[in-house]
Amino acid sequence: MILIKIDKQSTVPVFRQIIHQLAFLIDGGVLKVGDRLPASRMLAAQLGVNRATVYRAYEELWAAGYTESRPGSYSVVRARMTMNVDPGPPGSLIDWAGIGRESRLVGQSLTFAGRKLFQGEIINFRPLSPDSRLMPVDDFRKCMHDVLVKEGASLLQYGDTFGYRPLREFLVRHLQKHGIQVSVDEIMLTNGSQQSLDLILRFFDKPGLKVAVEQPSYSQFINLLDFYQAQVVGLPMGENGADLAEVDRIFVREKPAFFYTMPNFHNPLGISTSQEYRERLLKLCETHRVVLIEDGFEEEMKFFGKAILPIKSMDSKQVVIYLGTFSKVLFPGLRVGWIAADKACISHLAAIRQIVDHSGNQLSQAAIYKYCISGYYDLHLKRLHREYRKRMQAALKAVREFIPEIIRCTKPSGGYLLWMKMPDDRIEESVLLEKLSGAGVSVSPGQLFFSEKQTIPAFRLSIAHLDETEIRLGMERIGRVLSEVYGR
Amino acid sequence: MILIKIDKQSTVPVFRQIIHQLAFLIDGGVLKVGDRLPASRMLAAQLGVNRATVYRAYEELWAAGYTESRPGSYSVVRARMTMNVDPGPPGSLIDWAGIGRESRLVGQSLTFAGRKLFQGEIINFRPLSPDSRLMPVDDFRKCMHDVLVKEGASLLQYGDTFGYRPLREFLVRHLQKHGIQVSVDEIMLTNGSQQSLDLILRFFDKPGLKVAVEQPSYSQFINLLDFYQAQVVGLPMGENGADLAEVDRIFVREKPAFFYTMPNFHNPLGISTSQEYRERLLKLCETHRVVLIEDGFEEEMKFFGKAILPIKSMDSKQVVIYLGTFSKVLFPGLRVGWIAADKACISHLAAIRQIVDHSGNQLSQAAIYKYCISGYYDLHLKRLHREYRKRMQAALKAVREFIPEIIRCTKPSGGYLLWMKMPDDRIEESVLLEKLSGAGVSVSPGQLFFSEKQTIPAFRLSIAHLDETEIRLGMERIGRVLSEVYGR
Repeated sequence: MILIKIDKQSTVPVFRQIIHQLAFLIDGGVLKVGDRLPASRMLAAQLGVNRATVYRAYEELWAAGYTESRPGSYSVVRARMTMNVDPGPPGSLIDWAGIGRESRLVGQSLTFAGRKLFQGEIINFRPLSPDSRLMPVDDFRKCMHDVLVKEGASLLQYGDTFGYRPLREFLVRHLQKHGIQVSVDEIMLTNGSQQSLDLILRFFDKPGLKVAVEQPSYSQFINLLDFYQAQVVGLPMGENGADLAEVDRIFVREKPAFFYTMPNFHNPLGISTSQEYRERLLKLCETHRVVLIEDGFEEEMKFFGKAILPIKSMDSKQVVIYLGTFSKVLFPGLRVGWIAADKACISHLAAIRQIVDHSGNQLSQAAIYKYCISGYYDLHLKRLHREYRKRMQAALKAVREFIPEIIRCTKPSGGYLLWMKMPDDRIEESVLLEKLSGAGVSVSPGQLFFSEKQTIPAFRLSIAHLDETEIRLGMERIGRVLSEVYGR
Repeated sequence: MILIKIDKQSTVPVFRQIIHQLAFLIDGGVLKVGDRLPASRMLAAQLGVNRATVYRAYEELWAAGYTESRPGSYSVVRARMTMNVDPGPPGSLIDWAGIGRESRLVGQSLTFAGRKLFQGEIINFRPLSPDSRLMPVDDFRKCMHDVLVKEGASLLQYGDTFGYRPLREFLVRHLQKHGIQVSVDEIMLTNGSQQSLDLILRFFDKPGLKVAVEQPSYSQFINLLDFYQAQVVGLPMGENGADLAEVDRIFVREKPAFFYTMPNFHNPLGISTSQEYRERLLKLCETHRVVLIEDGFEEEMKFFGKAILPIKSMDSKQVVIYLGTFSKVLFPGLRVGWIAADKACISHLAAIRQIVDHSGNQLSQAAIYKYCISGYYDLHLKRLHREYRKRMQAALKAVREFIPEIIRCTKPSGGYLLWMKMPDDRIEESVLLEKLSGAGVSVSPGQLFFSEKQTIPAFRLSIAHLDETEIRLGMERIGRVLSEVYGR
């Protein structure tokens, strides 16, 4: 029997305590490769906790590469993996892991290690960033050269906390194309949307903070909420968004500080909500004075059908904080995103930003500005659209051809993402993902995108880094596995 | 009589409540230009708070440009200034300032507005970053071009959270020159030291966190501690560092989580501690298991006398977290710094960093790497040394020539900073600074670098952006004002 001690008074969630202690036992060699973990039911009874809690811990241990799932739903310790968080060699006088446990950090740091079971080229449906093969490096290099020649010395000095002003002015004009009317004081550049979200959480942070979140939602946002110990109020997503009557009830009952939504090409679902839905959602936020965080991370990536305006374009009462980024269409490595919101809100966020990391990389912001005003950006977008329209068409065609009809798959009108949800729980998600991996495809586990344990397996597919041939081959492999489990 | 309501139960410090309400009254026009604020003694009595609290609020209002000090030590509302934090127009449904008040943010955001009273060229002793006139822009441009040609597409993708590996490997070798032995796993690149400090505070953050800090210390670190509501245990700095017997007592009595120190060219004092002091301080940290944060922000800027090794070079027990940066010798605008510490510590910090902003600007990291390994960096440092040695000599000479002997001024052996402390409180700091401003010199207020109210005026001088002629002219102006107040 494994000895695990749970401290229910601790601020560290119980499932994280379990993860940490099991990881410790595995790292320390107490549990060896091939050893079976106790059945989740048993361990739950032993610890006096909910079975779902143990289940979640097991899932994360699996995702971190500590265990494999075996049919019959037990977990065994797998061969060694890499791990971000080092428990600390005995060489240090300081108990770093102890500090980590007391801080709000524990468990954030386990990363997916993966293991290559498949002999051959793995088709990787996981990365969500523009294909390196489509990156306009040469044009950008010219822009970088230009700004260094013309204003190098000043760009290499400390910059404005709000970001390089000409780029903010460009964004003011650019957002007008999407119907958004903001002034230059209402935009702050950030180091990408991850920082935008972190700054927003710092601004709203207080004991007992409640946040309404779509389920599923962006996985790193869920991790961030976990880090801030925010209370997550989940709003299940249907094919047309959340149930607005339910949103209304939740707003009244829970009074969340804000609602985080991705209206276009939702991550991970790939779906977009309708114009009418957006208007009604905004109205609800206004009525209940709930701030709406609109993440427009792929605003520009609409390539089928008519464009639908972002919610921010209708925001006459200034309740929407809009997030944009260059990471999903241009250069993720430059870390340039932005927040557009009420001037008072932006000035508070800038004040926080100043003590967090002072300011962003001014040189990159200036080079991107140059890239945009030289007309390169519009050309690049056109090229991306042409390319990804073909890819998405190939993906949807392959879904019809290879994926059993019983599997629900979204039909995006843009962006890079599709979502497949199984009809029932006859197979565990981790087992299904191992099978897919064995068949030569890598996908993102559905569970990552939920704050609560899910019983029905699902997974996210990104076509960002794959061409049409690769997409078709990958879908064929997925289809084979799914047909095996669910029949044709 | 002014109506101010103080909530003593609030987590917002009382002095911030005062600031906020007075600023509100001024912004709203209730208090008009020229209006006198109540005497601090009176307001303190009225509110039932300590006079020092009111005093601090008044100081910050002054620093934010809301008021001017008049002889006889009362404050009047001055003509309009700019302010970072906008109280929010009536246009928004959301009370952004209210959210700001509930979060830990209030007051962080007031910035120094300044006002040009002097007719002519102001000599600016405030900026702490390399002189733009000395920036090696052309060499850097070549490096940037090179890395974009050779590995542009991969550098523009999402990078490693730990930072561009070749630069980390370079730093491993480079730190050996300072006697520091670390492996590549013990270094993480950050967006500058401000982010390094923020990540460290996030790691240590817990209710009741205690931090030992030199007094005075880096002003933005004090603001950060305030934001995290950390309890500051101040250690007064003498000419040879803090009193180590006192450090010992404080470590025993207060058990701080860590001690933050700047052994070389201390900000704001400009002084460096001795080899013996460093050894004894490290020993104390080991004995009491207090983590030592060593900020080596100007490690490379020693240009008089013998180099003294950083404390990290003696850190056999792994209790030191060492911070470095390129911002004070190369390009602040690129936001590249680093943390060197025990592997377990670094892996925890990286885990936090991943959810905070994912990773840094990989392209800039690669271009700096190229700049360093091409030999440009060493040449640039030599040039900086040559230049700043002359400037510092000019500054010290001008101090002897123009500054009354009764004023205590530090004698740095490197870096950019000098510190002047007045012999008594016959003049208020804010009044003194107004006088200096009127005489055509801008300096950094001493109070900024303390977490507690100081009665003896002091100020920081940076020679970073001034050449020898400017330094001499500026010192002459300072000397004139000080002689007027304190006699020759």
